[in-house]
Amino acid sequence: MPSEVVSLTGHIIDSLTLSKVLDIILRDGGQYRIRRFEIGETRNDTSHAEIIVSAPDTTTLERILHQIGQHGAERAVGEAEVEPAPADGVLPAGFYVTTNLETHVRWKERWIPVEPIEMDCAIVISGNPGEETATSVPMHRVRRGDRIVVGDRGVRVTPLERLEPTDVFSFMGSEVSTERPKERIIAAIVQAMQEARDAGRRILFVGGPAIVHTGAARSLEAIIRAGWIDVLFAGNALAVHDIEQALYGTSLGVDLNTGNHRAHGHEHHLRAINTIRSIGSIRKAVEQGIVTRGILHACITCGTDFVLAGSIRDDGPLPEVITDVVQAQDAMRERVRGVGVALMVATTLHSIATGNLLPATVRTLCVDSDPNTVIKLMDRGTHQAFGLVTDCEFFLKELAARLPGVIP
Amino acid sequence: MPSEVVSLTGHIIDSLTLSKVLDIILRDGGQYRIRRFEIGETRNDTSHAEIIVSAPDTTTLERILHQIGQHGAERAVGEAEVEPAPADGVLPAGFYVTTNLETHVRWKERWIPVEPIEMDCAIVISGNPGEETATSVPMHRVRRGDRIVVGDRGVRVTPLERLEPTDVFSFMGSEVSTERPKERIIAAIVQAMQEARDAGRRILFVGGPAIVHTGAARSLEAIIRAGWIDVLFAGNALAVHDIEQALYGTSLGVDLNTGNHRAHGHEHHLRAINTIRSIGSIRKAVEQGIVTRGILHACITCGTDFVLAGSIRDDGPLPEVITDVVQAQDAMRERVRGVGVALMVATTLHSIATGNLLPATVRTLCVDSDPNTVIKLMDRGTHQAFGLVTDCEFFLKELAARLPGVIP
Amino acid sequence: MPSEVVSLTGHIIDSLTLSKVLDIILRDGGQYRIRRFEIGETRNDTSHAEIIVSAPDTTTLERILHQIGQHGAERAVGEAEVEPAPADGVLPAGFYVTTNLETHVRWKERWIPVEPIEMDCAIVISGNPGEETATSVPMHRVRRGDRIVVGDRGVRVTPLERLEPTDVFSFMGSEVSTERPKERIIAAIVQAMQEARDAGRRILFVGGPAIVHTGAARSLEAIIRAGWIDVLFAGNALAVHDIEQALYGTSLGVDLNTGNHRAHGHEHHLRAINTIRSIGSIRKAVEQGIVTRGILHACITCGTDFVLAGSIRDDGPLPEVITDVVQAQDAMRERVRGVGVALMVATTLHSIATGNLLPATVRTLCVDSDPNTVIKLMDRGTHQAFGLVTDCEFFLKELAARLPGVIP
Amino acid sequence: MPSEVVSLTGHIIDSLTLSKVLDIILRDGGQYRIRRFEIGETRNDTSHAEIIVSAPDTTTLERILHQIGQHGAERAVGEAEVEPAPADGVLPAGFYVTTNLETHVRWKERWIPVEPIEMDCAIVISGNPGEETATSVPMHRVRRGDRIVVGDRGVRVTPLERLEPTDVFSFMGSEVSTERPKERIIAAIVQAMQEARDAGRRILFVGGPAIVHTGAARSLEAIIRAGWIDVLFAGNALAVHDIEQALYGTSLGVDLNTGNHRAHGHEHHLRAINTIRSIGSIRKAVEQGIVTRGILHACITCGTDFVLAGSIRDDGPLPEVITDVVQAQDAMRERVRGVGVALMVATTLHSIATGNLLPATVRTLCVDSDPNTVIKLMDRGTHQAFGLVTDCEFFLKELAARLPGVIP
Repeated sequence: MPSEVVSLTGHIIDSLTLSKVLDIILRDGGQYRIRRFEIGETRNDTSHAEIIVSAPDTTTLERILHQIGQHGAERAVGEAEVEPAPADGVLPAGFYVTTNLETHVRWKERWIPVEPIEMDCAIVISGNPGEETATSVPMHRVRRGDRIVVGDRGVRVTPLERLEPTDVFSFMGSEVSTERPKERIIAAIVQAMQEARDAGRRILFVGGPAIVHTGAARSLEAIIRAGWIDVLFAGNALAVHDIEQALYGTSLGVDLNTGNHRAHGHEHHLRAINTIRSIGSIRKAVEQGIVTRGILHACITCGTDFVLAGSIRDDGPLPEVITDVVQAQDAMRERVRGVGVALMVATTLHSIATGNLLPATVRTLCVDSDPNTVIKLMDRGTHQAFGLVTDCEFFLKELAARLPGVIP
Repeated sequence: MPSEVVSLTGHIIDSLTLSKVLDIILRDGGQYRIRRFEIGETRNDTSHAEIIVSAPDTTTLERILHQIGQHGAERAVGEAEVEPAPADGVLPAGFYVTTNLETHVRWKERWIPVEPIEMDCAIVISGNPGEETATSVPMHRVRRGDRIVVGDRGVRVTPLERLEPTDVFSFMGSEVSTERPKERIIAAIVQAMQEARDAGRRILFVGGPAIVHTGAARSLEAIIRAGWIDVLFAGNALAVHDIEQALYGTSLGVDLNTGNHRAHGHEHHLRAINTIRSIGSIRKAVEQGIVTRGILHACITCGTDFVLAGSIRDDGPLPEVITDVVQAQDAMRERVRGVGVALMVATTLHSIATGNLLPATVRTLCVDSDPNTVIKLMDRGTHQAFGLVTDCEFFLKELAARLPGVIP
Repeated sequence: MPSEVVSLTGHIIDSLTLSKVLDIILRDGGQYRIRRFEIGETRNDTSHAEIIVSAPDTTTLERILHQIGQHGAERAVGEAEVEPAPADGVLPAGFYVTTNLETHVRWKERWIPVEPIEMDCAIVISGNPGEETATSVPMHRVRRGDRIVVGDRGVRVTPLERLEPTDVFSFMGSEVSTERPKERIIAAIVQAMQEARDAGRRILFVGGPAIVHTGAARSLEAIIRAGWIDVLFAGNALAVHDIEQALYGTSLGVDLNTGNHRAHGHEHHLRAINTIRSIGSIRKAVEQGIVTRGILHACITCGTDFVLAGSIRDDGPLPEVITDVVQAQDAMRERVRGVGVALMVATTLHSIATGNLLPATVRTLCVDSDPNTVIKLMDRGTHQAFGLVTDCEFFLKELAARLPGVIP
Repeated sequence: MPSEVVSLTGHIIDSLTLSKVLDIILRDGGQYRIRRFEIGETRNDTSHAEIIVSAPDTTTLERILHQIGQHGAERAVGEAEVEPAPADGVLPAGFYVTTNLETHVRWKERWIPVEPIEMDCAIVISGNPGEETATSVPMHRVRRGDRIVVGDRGVRVTPLERLEPTDVFSFMGSEVSTERPKERIIAAIVQAMQEARDAGRRILFVGGPAIVHTGAARSLEAIIRAGWIDVLFAGNALAVHDIEQALYGTSLGVDLNTGNHRAHGHEHHLRAINTIRSIGSIRKAVEQGIVTRGILHACITCGTDFVLAGSIRDDGPLPEVITDVVQAQDAMRERVRGVGVALMVATTLHSIATGNLLPATVRTLCVDSDPNTVIKLMDRGTHQAFGLVTDCEFFLKELAARLPGVIP
């Protein structure tokens, strides 16, 4: 019966890692014996375990080693293996698939970090001998001949530490529930945003059109003007309704002051798009004084970067919208570098798309009135996301009220 | 082919009544001819139509006449027929089933109003000859020998007028959507509450335990203290969590200031119930200074009436809870008299139970984070309800901020 | 006070059109007097009304006439006015915005139909003198100099007739409720599909990836193989999971026979994409015998047309996916011609995108486990959609069992 | 700094128990040192840890010891302490609050089991010296002078073992998701029901009225007739609609064969109630041949026990309905003894009420089209419940098709 020794080091009790590893071994048809076990005496000490893993055949054993490797169980170190990409946009068959966790590759007897890390990518080794770097690369950006890591020998993944019980995010847990006091959560977000700011990390806001429909745009606009958002991801719809509101005071024809449907109002969004297309761009409309307020006005006048990504339900679209989704993804990919906090508000599509691009270390809050949005985001791998099931109108109003320097 | 002439009078075009009546006739297998039609020239004038309804047989015709009678189509007037109730709590087989719309009964050549009106009841005629009154009575309160209206001859139902387009509630329509600016709706509720108050009508609040879990209790407490609520309907759970919060500062063990789970906290609600049971009642606990704050403290000290109705998921329950559901329903039934505005917040069970008791003329707002609650309420006959899909925390905070005289 | 006479003809009582028109006039600040009124005696006869509309000023009057024109109220006929498009992709400021209802344009003293009709487009008049045709054109396809209809003079919209009470779809109403017997609804869909087929109209299926996750793909595959679907709209995700299942027997790594997570399974979808990219296309993978089953295999081998439209959350994507959303929309637009029945299952994005392209006469069924998807679709203008809140697994299994010729 | 030694024994790594215990100590302000640690070599061996827990003060220490005691951490054994109940229905202030996990009490130097166990109760010690038994008793059933356990000294709770990875229920995990293949889950339920049956344990079915509305009643009826259900919990509504269907073929007036609203149909449920009230009971109506089919007919003719519990939204109610909620709870409490599998379908209220009464060892499946129902059930302490988000119509049809001996 083939077997191999792996070792696990860290807060492996506390982080549930040991339990998970043992469970995977049994689930996938293996056996284990704990050969050595040293438990840390206090929370600050690390524990160490050596585990003999055996399985009925080599294939099963390899599969198990691969799985538990994802949780930090390292086997006797070997070098990473690479194979060249067979064509542009195509990977070698056995390519290693990345997670969104911190990852290192063993290359010429040193561990080199994969930077940036992004889930569901391949790892490319590049650079001159002795100066190699490792990068996660999405399939479509691979070029023929790129050296791609295959198998999982020589790849080390560092599991996410559990948050300290006193951490500002930890009390939220991963529960998705509407029945919790929300003001305290919003206070925690404010603190996380301030910490990110102090640490020189950027703040990303991902938003859907309901922000405008519900009248919450004015709060978001104020937050942007106060300098709290470094980059905004949205779609054509948010931008259209924002501009409709700037030009007509309505969103999808509903007057945001009176709540009434304005006559002809359902045509406003098309007329707004047409106006911007005739001027050439949102930026020009702002510069020429045609658009004088709103979320995008705030972005353009305050230097907040933004990506408007297209979707098949778009009208128009507006000139700044990137209609090719692969290009849009790349534009987002470029801008998530250095992000420390991501706020995702009232959009399933853009939240999941952004979650796919973020390292697991980014503090991520997903706000939606529908618990399913949050559940889907976590189901698709963005496990670090905290869900807040509430109204975006309420959330942004409260956030604006609590963030220093925001003038409502 | 049997036929009968019916007449329809009122804003029958405008209120869609004529269309519905014609539709029912065809749907149920009848034919019609419009014999006479006078349309009002302006909105203020009433229209009048005489329609010949025919059907293949008498049973079908009677069924159609019954149906369209519910929409105000009267046939050549006849006297209402009555039969005695055969036993306590049992109605004669053909008993007329009430709607929640204004209803009159033809009795000894005059129209007497059914007061109060409640859906899914029978009509009892009582009183001395010449002084008869008509009352809607739920099945369980009928006594053997009561004179019960059977069939629908001699019963006239007045359809609800559509709201004026300028009415404070009308712009809400019956749409149930999260994507609308909510502040305007809350302003409309405030105005409706003021109008009810000015007209000498009472304001009913129906609430669920999420009001306490989310930290919204302080807003509701302030609204009660300012005198805006005349009667509160709730269950054991809302009261238990309210008292838990008053005694321990937690709700289901979650500290409402920090959002953290308090040690032993999950036991607080049972200890709170036990404390009140040992004292004898919530009222005594307030009077003895044991409970010094909260929703029920506000009710008891400000003279706001309340009904706590039991359910099978109750712990305890608290002494004031009415554990017999039929008695609880009767206690609620008694207190809906004179109500002009009903606010239903974060409870499906109590909202539907209350909706069953209310005349259709009561302005009813149902607030829930789940659109299904609102849909269910309307599905079950409370068609006049307006739905607001949002967080109760936000709703009550905004309502408290906008109601005159509320000290947050 | 300016005024104008308009006339309304048709089943204007029955279809609620008269009521709506009168209501709009009052709501928007106008007055009316009914000058003439002839009501049809039976359901088959049409009614006719002449209404004098007046308003405080010309702007208000024009706005009202525009609004009620959308419901078929015609004023003294005038010719449609056109203006040239000022640039490619830009419309003249006052362009007429289309609905999804049957529309005619008055041009040189004859009424010419707008074909095809699509909501939120402009109308272009083209062709040689005397042979002009009218077409609805989305903004981005307009070319400089195209003759675009402006204002609403000379445009006639025919409201959708209400369905006969005996129609197969009519009993569904527009209620969105989970609490209805679904088998009867499915029988109605089957009948509608047969009627469409008999009338030479095409059947469109719009699907989301949950069809594969839930194991319903086998039913859809069988329906396609039996020739019931003419065209399929989906995204990269449905196709990826379908191919993952064909290659590995899993969907997102879950074994569809055992329900268990397969080891390494979360990587399958990426390996499936890479395999297809290395072959060049799904079609080639089918032709080369690499993909031997599944939804797309059925489409390719049975000649069912399909459009795979990209979105920003896509991995890969697969070679056949159209990554430019405007091109994808145009590919869908082209294929909705001649569609008689549209089934939309388990996708919000693709359902709304498709709904935007369909004439209101297409029988549209939207199936989703979340009532919000259906509500959103109708909120965005696809009023003809019927909602069925259920599991796609159940729906497709039942549909496959009831459609003639399907071999499960 | 006060400290105490506790010991933990069992599959404490595997079951995550050790991690939880250490976490609680830190969270609640304590410190720990692992004094001794013996890890089991294989999955079958148990592990053992001795932990020194210290805290700044005695109160904190006691609180921590109490908390970790809930997870099986025992301190130097002491006898349980009891105090007499001060009045009927009132507990001594420091009463021990039960969980739904297996529990023993140390009494006169032996461990006696608490039977039956139910969450949120007190423990009563009764019986003659030397023959004492321990019982969990809900607050309202306590009698003055009963010996109630106070504090948590001498109480031992056995955590639930995690299910074997190969167990029929384990693959479901606790995920609540609509996007999973459901047929496999239903197969697992069938197996669990067979295992319960073989082990001599009873099967409980808890159902809501949507079972009748959706047309699923015929499947449930067939399952009952085949002898698969030992006891049914429901409310007035399920029974009323079931009888309405038996008498009229409709549910809330909707014809379950055609899906159409039947004329007068909305009155059927009241007429059905009145009919049964005039006969005296559902049982008599079955015996007299008035009710000849349906769920309750199946229960009564096949000897399946049932409890119909009242709620404030009930019409009527039917004679068998227990209108006092405390009595209804007691009737349910009595019947959960010996239950091995509980199926909860399409009811939030009855599911939560039943979950409160069940030991954690009962295999519990909660089926609802709304994920929130499942989330709420688990939030309220029924952690062992597995959620299946789907249509009850589909679920029951599939279940009937797969259970041996069911004749559809």
